[in-house]
Amino acid sequence: MAEFTHDAAPRPRTPALDGLITAILGGTGEQGRGLARRLAMAGHPVIIGSRSRNRARATAQEVGHGICGLANRDANLVIVAVPYEGHGELLAGLAAELAGKIVVDCVNPLGFDQGGAYPMPVPEGSAAQQAAALLPGSRVVAAFHHVSAVLLLDPEAQTLDQDVLVLGDDRAATDLVQALAARIPGVRGVYGGRLRNCRQIESLTANLVSINRRYKAHAGLRITDI
Amino acid sequence: MAEFTHDAAPRPRTPALDGLITAILGGTGEQGRGLARRLAMAGHPVIIGSRSRNRARATAQEVGHGICGLANRDANLVIVAVPYEGHGELLAGLAAELAGKIVVDCVNPLGFDQGGAYPMPVPEGSAAQQAAALLPGSRVVAAFHHVSAVLLLDPEAQTLDQDVLVLGDDRAATDLVQALAARIPGVRGVYGGRLRNCRQIESLTANLVSINRRYKAHAGLRITDI
Repeated sequence: MAEFTHDAAPRPRTPALDGLITAILGGTGEQGRGLARRLAMAGHPVIIGSRSRNRARATAQEVGHGICGLANRDANLVIVAVPYEGHGELLAGLAAELAGKIVVDCVNPLGFDQGGAYPMPVPEGSAAQQAAALLPGSRVVAAFHHVSAVLLLDPEAQTLDQDVLVLGDDRAATDLVQALAARIPGVRGVYGGRLRNCRQIESLTANLVSINRRYKAHAGLRITDI
Repeated sequence: MAEFTHDAAPRPRTPALDGLITAILGGTGEQGRGLARRLAMAGHPVIIGSRSRNRARATAQEVGHGICGLANRDANLVIVAVPYEGHGELLAGLAAELAGKIVVDCVNPLGFDQGGAYPMPVPEGSAAQQAAALLPGSRVVAAFHHVSAVLLLDPEAQTLDQDVLVLGDDRAATDLVQALAARIPGVRGVYGGRLRNCRQIESLTANLVSINRRYKAHAGLRITDI
């Protein structure tokens, strides 16, 4: 796990994913369940975190693929897939438990009205920056904002045709999350910039909602020329 | 020109581009010159607007393809490709001249420091919303934010591999601009939402700058599943 703790140390171009144990906070929601399913299908141990141990266990059984509904303590990478409401409160209470871990925030702070989706203001700029402020002992990365939960959970969708933008200020951590994203068939993990440029990535989900409505689609992004 | 003035009237699925005369404000800059070149290559009359009539004429001669460096008055569609600095002041002074026209804003309010590019605050939310506030008599659309000026101007780049996101609150106007964008070989014009969701589209250019640095590319966007 040297690549988790030594930024300056030389590392292989594709970081090793061996030994990675992922926990998903909000793993009983659509996005969390979908990510759990795809990562477990790729052979990665996944823990579904939930406030309710029974609900976590039930979701784990439903999703299958060897997912277990246990504690987050044993994970070295934690994906935050909770609603924005309560996001800050939840993370503030987990700062000690999440210290030393890579925390992947995929939360989109969106509101909805008759005109569709729109970005909600976040005091820290973005959900990911809020996570970074609340978790000073963790290595916060942002990713998986635009992946459709419907496609993640669709047994007919063998591969997903999209890139996952991965943002963060810690190169080894973003490299690792890019490699993890690429374990989902069809997905590339693409570096998307520093955390200070995360707000527009989270907000862009509102545009994808508009695109989905207009085109009756599950729109995703590809980055060209790379 | 019925499709310019009658939102509620039935219109063809692909709006007619016949009779469209495009003027480019800031047509002597990289982005403006590149768009002028590509639209003129596609057979559309393009006027290069500039504060300096001589500079506009010189750019028009340099770019060729029948571009003329004359007044904006005869255009029915005006592309705003100026730097964000001075954007509001320029448009405020043109409100009467631009009334009745479709105004396509492609301005990205970005700052740059040692960490790369980042979005600058805009009182109205985005450059396009600023344009809409300053030009109550115009039909403001936002588009062409992510198209690389280098590729637009590159004679070797026969086609561009990317989608142009087109945002606006006026369906006929966004349809027209989508069709116009599609006149650039390789480009699709994709509806991207209402103007209130334009800030993240403009800001996303900062992420593309990061991607270009990391991957040594001229990154563009494609929307999948549509």
